[in-house]
Amino acid sequence: MDEEKSIKWRFKANEEVSRASAYTIKGVFYTLLKHLSDSGDDRPVISLGRGDPSASPCFRTTPVAEDAVVEALQSSDFNSCAPDFGILPARRSVAEYLSCDLPYKLSPDDVYLTVGAKQAIEIILPALVRPGANILLPKPGYPLYEAHAALSHLEVRHFDLLPEKGWEVDLDGLKALANDKTIAMVIVNPGNPCGNVFAYEHLEKVSETARELGILVIADEVYDHLAFGNTPFVPMREFAATVPVLTLGSISKRWNVPGWRLGWIVTCDPNGILQNSGIVDCIKHCLNVTSRPTTFVQGAIPQIFAKTTEDFFLNTLNLLREAAETCYDKLKDIPCITCPHKPEGSMFVMVKLNLSLLEGIEDDMEFCIKLVKEESVIILPGVALGLKNWLRITFAIELSSLEDGLARLKAFCSRHSKKH
Amino acid sequence: MDEEKSIKWRFKANEEVSRASAYTIKGVFYTLLKHLSDSGDDRPVISLGRGDPSASPCFRTTPVAEDAVVEALQSSDFNSCAPDFGILPARRSVAEYLSCDLPYKLSPDDVYLTVGAKQAIEIILPALVRPGANILLPKPGYPLYEAHAALSHLEVRHFDLLPEKGWEVDLDGLKALANDKTIAMVIVNPGNPCGNVFAYEHLEKVSETARELGILVIADEVYDHLAFGNTPFVPMREFAATVPVLTLGSISKRWNVPGWRLGWIVTCDPNGILQNSGIVDCIKHCLNVTSRPTTFVQGAIPQIFAKTTEDFFLNTLNLLREAAETCYDKLKDIPCITCPHKPEGSMFVMVKLNLSLLEGIEDDMEFCIKLVKEESVIILPGVALGLKNWLRITFAIELSSLEDGLARLKAFCSRHSKKH
Ligand SMILES: Cc1ncc(COP(=O)(O)O)c(C=O)c1O
Ligand SMILES: Cc1ncc(COP(=O)(O)O)c(C=O)c1O
Repeated sequence: MDEEKSIKWRFKANEEVSRASAYTIKGVFYTLLKHLSDSGDDRPVISLGRGDPSASPCFRTTPVAEDAVVEALQSSDFNSCAPDFGILPARRSVAEYLSCDLPYKLSPDDVYLTVGAKQAIEIILPALVRPGANILLPKPGYPLYEAHAALSHLEVRHFDLLPEKGWEVDLDGLKALANDKTIAMVIVNPGNPCGNVFAYEHLEKVSETARELGILVIADEVYDHLAFGNTPFVPMREFAATVPVLTLGSISKRWNVPGWRLGWIVTCDPNGILQNSGIVDCIKHCLNVTSRPTTFVQGAIPQIFAKTTEDFFLNTLNLLREAAETCYDKLKDIPCITCPHKPEGSMFVMVKLNLSLLEGIEDDMEFCIKLVKEESVIILPGVALGLKNWLRITFAIELSSLEDGLARLKAFCSRHSKKH
Repeated sequence: MDEEKSIKWRFKANEEVSRASAYTIKGVFYTLLKHLSDSGDDRPVISLGRGDPSASPCFRTTPVAEDAVVEALQSSDFNSCAPDFGILPARRSVAEYLSCDLPYKLSPDDVYLTVGAKQAIEIILPALVRPGANILLPKPGYPLYEAHAALSHLEVRHFDLLPEKGWEVDLDGLKALANDKTIAMVIVNPGNPCGNVFAYEHLEKVSETARELGILVIADEVYDHLAFGNTPFVPMREFAATVPVLTLGSISKRWNVPGWRLGWIVTCDPNGILQNSGIVDCIKHCLNVTSRPTTFVQGAIPQIFAKTTEDFFLNTLNLLREAAETCYDKLKDIPCITCPHKPEGSMFVMVKLNLSLLEGIEDDMEFCIKLVKEESVIILPGVALGLKNWLRITFAIELSSLEDGLARLKAFCSRHSKKH
């Protein structure tokens, strides 16, 4: 090894990449998991942390979807590399799936298949970069946007979602943030992390504001149709005549198969504005140099869409509704936690910590670390999502585990509450 | 639409992305295919263009592999998001698979699963970027490296592969190119586009040269084990004690399933140099913010590796050997084409065009366009790979189609040859 030292190796890591990945939720989970291992608690771990219920038997995907993939695979028609934008039958199915109730029709040419919506984000942000440009992201939000903005040298400006208004976009604040270098805004609907669903009228206002500012809307709708409250899910693309919309989505959430890795970018552009701006070509170019989703999963899409029954969707919605209500009710009983808005969609609820009621807990991160250590319950601290001293709780797990987890949370809070 | 015009939309495409994608082979194929459509030829199209024989019945993958995927899928143990680096059983299998005959053992921790080797390239290049750094790429080569170097602002310097020396690396030339900003070199072995296989002694020299220069070696071994000539395939990682090696690979080629999208980055680093340089962490950070391969395909890997029989591999090698020999023999009969080196591996052969023997053909691109129009045969012009006035011919197709394609190529050449 002495000789080893004398060599001057010239390579080194790219520090920018490491900085960008600091934004991810996973880093926070790793920290929490480390504390789990020295907890000494032998009760089962309950994770109210991640939005992936696919491992719970009650959330298992429909056999129809599994059969469609098996059939596609066994046909051996889908062992080859797929075309850059995805195979045509799958693009056509996605276009039809997303066109129902729209005042215009999407064409297969508007659809680009991606390795989950995650890759859609990876592709979209670089495609939009221009020198000095900035993008408006929601706070709280989904930090993968911050990570890819950082990697692409795109400046981020955060607009608020307003808890007291059911997590609506603070449109006045948003207007004040924008300038002539602002290119786009992101909305996540149904919301991660807030569990809200934007009303039609609000989305209409969003579209008008974006139009006024001359920016496009990236509508992250991976939780599309997971709306179980009073507000129906309305896709942003309904307003694409007002403002160009890039819809991001996937089968991950509605079908509970995030491991299958199939998503899409859809250009909702009835006036051809994205086309004229060159962004459509740029997306194509990005797809040219990146990896595509598994071909036989693409091959299964037409069957998955055609054969999945309403029953399966309704069952998921019922499970989520019941879980959300249980969660909301139980949280009401915990004095140091306030839930400003009952969740109506997705799999999450954001709640505020009242630290002044707690003894010896500095912030949300410390709260979550102590919770893991003492109760083997994993909850995401709001700081990971841009909102310090809040918590994101996932209710999409088996009801009995949810109840157990919330009971432990309550015990933890009362044990740490200030005695006056 | 008048009103549309009065709005100043502030977004625009990122031109850098479009420039980077100009490097891809696909762009050239699109151009060729456009000419196909106005050819009026009603014979079947024969593509000697792409390295994806999976659609040919004779190259169909082994049922063992298909069964393993079906089983993993139906277990429903693999519907969730996989961990960032891949699921442990799959990483362990890849480590074992790549460790045989090595003087050291790879651990599962050295293995990072990717969406094909393509995503491995996407991840590795940005991870290595430093201000002013350059990377040494082979000429001719696989242009995805150029594309991602451009996207990451990594300067490219091309070293030659020497046709007269069986496409060995021009090590003297390479040394002359390197400077203190050089961080890495890429070798593709077995070779795309040259169909060569590097001998043990040559790889040893490559490792010593890289060590001298203080650079790491990226060993693209997607065609690993597809060596059917006299030179056995030797993995670059055998020399990892001399120089740190990043091995890139996938199941795409050996199993003929490029549509399944499962590959890997493996850090071959017995002396811990990559680890100390921070590059391992940087790769982890990149994986943090990108999309993972389909979980149930990961879940099938242990079974695919354990159960695929030698017969299947031997059959593929026999098919490729026979095709390569047919190809080599038939090409000998075409005066304007010279094949400097009989292919011994992968699926390709590089041949030189002697334009002085042809009438009215300016360069390789024009040759290929006219060939498509007149004969419905697709061949890749060398210019797409950095070697103007050469051609890359894929021989990995059904033998009868190969013979038909080469006969048409011969007819085309004799029709266009200069009459003296
Ligand atoms: C808001 C949001 N967008 C995108 C994604 C990525 O989803 P996928 O890549 O599984 O489609 C997620 C996943 O949790 C998400 O919560
Ligand atoms: C040299 C080389 N590297 C990498 C790849 C990517 O392979 P995959 O992503 O299918 O594993 C290819 C595909 O053709 C290739 O030829």
